[in-house]
Amino acid sequence: MATITARNGINVDQLVATIGAIQEDPAIAGFTFKATTEWVEGTRHQGEIRNFRHAGAQVERPEPYRLVGDEPPVLLGSNAGPNAVELLLQALGMCYGVGFVANAAARGFDISELRYEVEGDVDVRSFLGLDGPRAGFTAIRAKAWVKSPNATTEQLEELCQYVQDTSPVRDSLANAVPVETDLEVIA
Amino acid sequence: MATITARNGINVDQLVATIGAIQEDPAIAGFTFKATTEWVEGTRHQGEIRNFRHAGAQVERPEPYRLVGDEPPVLLGSNAGPNAVELLLQALGMCYGVGFVANAAARGFDISELRYEVEGDVDVRSFLGLDGPRAGFTAIRAKAWVKSPNATTEQLEELCQYVQDTSPVRDSLANAVPVETDLEVIA
Repeated sequence: MATITARNGINVDQLVATIGAIQEDPAIAGFTFKATTEWVEGTRHQGEIRNFRHAGAQVERPEPYRLVGDEPPVLLGSNAGPNAVELLLQALGMCYGVGFVANAAARGFDISELRYEVEGDVDVRSFLGLDGPRAGFTAIRAKAWVKSPNATTEQLEELCQYVQDTSPVRDSLANAVPVETDLEVIA
Repeated sequence: MATITARNGINVDQLVATIGAIQEDPAIAGFTFKATTEWVEGTRHQGEIRNFRHAGAQVERPEPYRLVGDEPPVLLGSNAGPNAVELLLQALGMCYGVGFVANAAARGFDISELRYEVEGDVDVRSFLGLDGPRAGFTAIRAKAWVKSPNATTEQLEELCQYVQDTSPVRDSLANAVPVETDLEVIA
């Protein structure tokens, strides 16, 4: 009977096998993810995330993930959902979380608690067409709280730094990403 | 009786008043948004977005927005929710949508349909500790479809460019943001 080595709920055997498979064929490291946004009314939008491409092939999920986006009243909305910059902060926390737990598992560290708070400063002047600081975040601050029964503070601090260095969302924020945007006008 | 000027569901009077108020007191353009992420099991996390600070004061929403994050099986998860890089793409679509609809309202353009598809390429080698391209998105592509009964194609194209230039999420991706990350080890 095969035994699955799981730590923190991460299948370490699969993790090791995935790394081995990518070392043999780097093409399987390539993913294209996707999200669609449909305008509803006012600042309210309906978001949907479902399929992605992996190594050139389409991967389908059984159900889409649906998400309502909106603004608070002070930004002309009605609080039907979080706004776009809040989602971006959420994405960073989620990315850090996965990186921390998976790499802890790979190092043999058990995690009993892990929590992130991420906050970011935005000045809406540029968004509103006024002179002001950059349109995006001028600063983002993340803080993690972690508890482990078998890793030292030093080991957890090294891991936290490693997770920052290899986080796809952090890298997408801390270093410029080329963003191309096209428009098709429907007649 | 006061008449509210609304277009595309956007309260244009409030938009104009907000711009005027910020011109008088730029401090009210400042926001600090926040998201928390709690690890559940494996790659699964529970996200929560609720309050924010505006002009230094706390703004509370009646209810938090909760969101489950996870990975697909090929990335060691069980598809309980979208992953972090998908959320980041969703954030860009939401940001573009709000910018397009609000600025269209300010220009007097009615929008009858608006939809964004955003996709991005990621290579997971750096995330897995292997030599490879950057950890984050190597490219992001957005496409908008828009229909308006009273704006020309040229006007919509100019607006699409304006929205790109003033989008907080696009700016946060296309230009580097300082990201600071701290760790507190729970004894």
